[in-house]
Amino acid sequence: MEIEIINTGSELLLGRVLNTHQQFLCSQLANLGMVVTRQVAISDTGPAIQNAVREALGRAELIIVTGGLGPTSDDITRDLIAELLGKKLRVDAEALSRIEQFFAQRNRRMPETTKVQALVPEGSIVLQNAHGTAPGLVIELDPNPFGSAGKRAVLVMLPGPPRELRPMFSKQVIPLLGKYFPKLTAFVCRTLKTTGIGESYVEEKIAGPLKHLTDGRIELGYCARVGEVDVRLVAHGADGECCVAEAEKIISGLIGAHIFGRDDDVLEEVVVRQLIAAKKTLAIAESCTGGFICHRITNVPGASEVFLNGMVTYSNESKQRLVGVHSETLAQFGAVSEATAREMAEGARLRSNADYAIAVTGIAGPGGGSTEKPVGTVFIALAGAEKTVTQQHLLQYDRETFKFVTSQLALDLLRRTLPLHR
Amino acid sequence: MEIEIINTGSELLLGRVLNTHQQFLCSQLANLGMVVTRQVAISDTGPAIQNAVREALGRAELIIVTGGLGPTSDDITRDLIAELLGKKLRVDAEALSRIEQFFAQRNRRMPETTKVQALVPEGSIVLQNAHGTAPGLVIELDPNPFGSAGKRAVLVMLPGPPRELRPMFSKQVIPLLGKYFPKLTAFVCRTLKTTGIGESYVEEKIAGPLKHLTDGRIELGYCARVGEVDVRLVAHGADGECCVAEAEKIISGLIGAHIFGRDDDVLEEVVVRQLIAAKKTLAIAESCTGGFICHRITNVPGASEVFLNGMVTYSNESKQRLVGVHSETLAQFGAVSEATAREMAEGARLRSNADYAIAVTGIAGPGGGSTEKPVGTVFIALAGAEKTVTQQHLLQYDRETFKFVTSQLALDLLRRTLPLHR
Repeated sequence: MEIEIINTGSELLLGRVLNTHQQFLCSQLANLGMVVTRQVAISDTGPAIQNAVREALGRAELIIVTGGLGPTSDDITRDLIAELLGKKLRVDAEALSRIEQFFAQRNRRMPETTKVQALVPEGSIVLQNAHGTAPGLVIELDPNPFGSAGKRAVLVMLPGPPRELRPMFSKQVIPLLGKYFPKLTAFVCRTLKTTGIGESYVEEKIAGPLKHLTDGRIELGYCARVGEVDVRLVAHGADGECCVAEAEKIISGLIGAHIFGRDDDVLEEVVVRQLIAAKKTLAIAESCTGGFICHRITNVPGASEVFLNGMVTYSNESKQRLVGVHSETLAQFGAVSEATAREMAEGARLRSNADYAIAVTGIAGPGGGSTEKPVGTVFIALAGAEKTVTQQHLLQYDRETFKFVTSQLALDLLRRTLPLHR
Repeated sequence: MEIEIINTGSELLLGRVLNTHQQFLCSQLANLGMVVTRQVAISDTGPAIQNAVREALGRAELIIVTGGLGPTSDDITRDLIAELLGKKLRVDAEALSRIEQFFAQRNRRMPETTKVQALVPEGSIVLQNAHGTAPGLVIELDPNPFGSAGKRAVLVMLPGPPRELRPMFSKQVIPLLGKYFPKLTAFVCRTLKTTGIGESYVEEKIAGPLKHLTDGRIELGYCARVGEVDVRLVAHGADGECCVAEAEKIISGLIGAHIFGRDDDVLEEVVVRQLIAAKKTLAIAESCTGGFICHRITNVPGASEVFLNGMVTYSNESKQRLVGVHSETLAQFGAVSEATAREMAEGARLRSNADYAIAVTGIAGPGGGSTEKPVGTVFIALAGAEKTVTQQHLLQYDRETFKFVTSQLALDLLRRTLPLHR
């Protein structure tokens, strides 16, 4: 089955933005066993959009078009596709009322142009937009006017903003695809999420012991990002679930301590779940990560149950005032030192009356390094009721990656300290 | 002039990786006045690659193909394109000797398969690879066998790894493009970055007054993200700079207060630059944004010059202890109130001995809302030496978007308060 994605938007071809839709849609579809065969990006101009859609309809059974459904004059996808297919546009009453509500709830006047978003080609299924004003559209073409005789095609149009497109695709399009294409291959895909271990080392550890399964029954893949390596297990056919479960058991036996979750788990969620289950509270004192650890923890709904407060002690004065680092410690060992990290964690824990406190202090760069303490030097401390554990690392990355990897190590230290919770 | 990019690689269509080549190549070419007209991603299979190259040659004068030049069995781009063009492969002596050196320098044995990378289609210009083993290739097709009669095309093949592709493109391909296409159109692209104003409203304000320029002399485009709208001005020809400058002046006159920067500016950088220029210091007290405002500020290199400390006062107790909110205020007005935001900002400013302090308190959701204060309610305060300004908003988004939009409003409030710095 041929599946094509068409991304419209001059900002893509000018290189102003990364095409995150491609990765999102391709991976979502691959998880359903539907592999995209071609992706095209074109600018917001009439001939380009119509040619691309016509060509895709000539080849594919499923075509997903992104962008160009908004209210401004360069949002022309809806009109052009309706014209290409010879379909009239009608006002969708529910879409219009949702657009009006959207502005009313925000106490904002609705510009007249906004209403064009409620126009839909006749015969389309309207996907209401829970996070914006432009609805998505699904048109079943049976027969497909540009395809081989008698063949059907499904054309899906999605709004460009990722926060509108993603939930619309997951919640509305995927169920429709199940209806249009019911004979999807039976397909099991599991991702084991690891941290604190490199990609080659993961492979070295697990590839041999999995050989009897990877010789035909499962596909094994790796995806390495900074601070995380995903191990992906894919199996087709009736015993797919069984094979994947067997592989997962073997991998857990070999590198289990590094596995923090599965599929869409993220480390901060795992840690918050562990804290909630253990009924423990957390305080955070950050220097070089500048609030990023607090940000990750507070991204998790329900974090307020366990997270009490954070202190972003960027200046030396604030390290003393907010978490009680001694001026002698700063004078003798410096702000970036094991002793300072330890006092930050212990001070944050005691003053916040928390069960645990994480502290980090380091040199994010690009400036501030020395021969003794080069850019990338970082100290992490975790204070609990019984003891304080510290770590030293050298993380030579750009500033934002440095913050991420430091936060990852700090959160993983807490994860390994807390009782498991699945 | 039509320019097309073809990205090969099954990992793209499985959604395992983001296509960063597209953005890199498109923005590099746009800076030269060469706007890419189409980008296609296809998997590493013979028919897909040959079809895509044949089609692109039927339309474009410049085609850039990425990926598939390496040593493994799925690296087949070189062979397939040579076959399509009816060109024999020959061993390039310099490429071979560089590959041998590459392994010798690393004290690694050279696998036999590696040598295939030294095979090049006859008549190609070989681009030596300073960071890997696969050379890039440039083939001038004059005439282009798949194009309109007599027309020429240039086909560029680049290796897939970004750290090999990027310097090869910048250092070797760009000079060649100047030779092949000497009459590049003079091209000006400017993006004005706005916040605090919706996309439709921007268009309503500026489209009319720019009509004399958009009728042929400049292209006007919009790119809306949550909390930000980019206005993009593109002009070709000798008077391009002039037209764009005129349009920018008109737009500044109409919505200037909302414009925080140009091109690659980000709001937190603008604010840090303003603070440094004004020699003013900043403290931050965050509740609902959970450290995200501190994170954004500390992403800016040099932030430590002006940012003193942040307090993430998630619990009520910490609002009292860390920034001195009165228990009566919490009891009478609640943690999410104008009075609390004001006391947080004033307390943070005084205790940190800072010139300015930002404070935010609100309900990020999904839980915690009430009829009186629904999810999305947020209060922002900015305390300075002379006065404290407060704002109330209702921001009904998912949790992470809520944090972003709140941080955007808070940073923009500070930006508008500080003296301009460009």
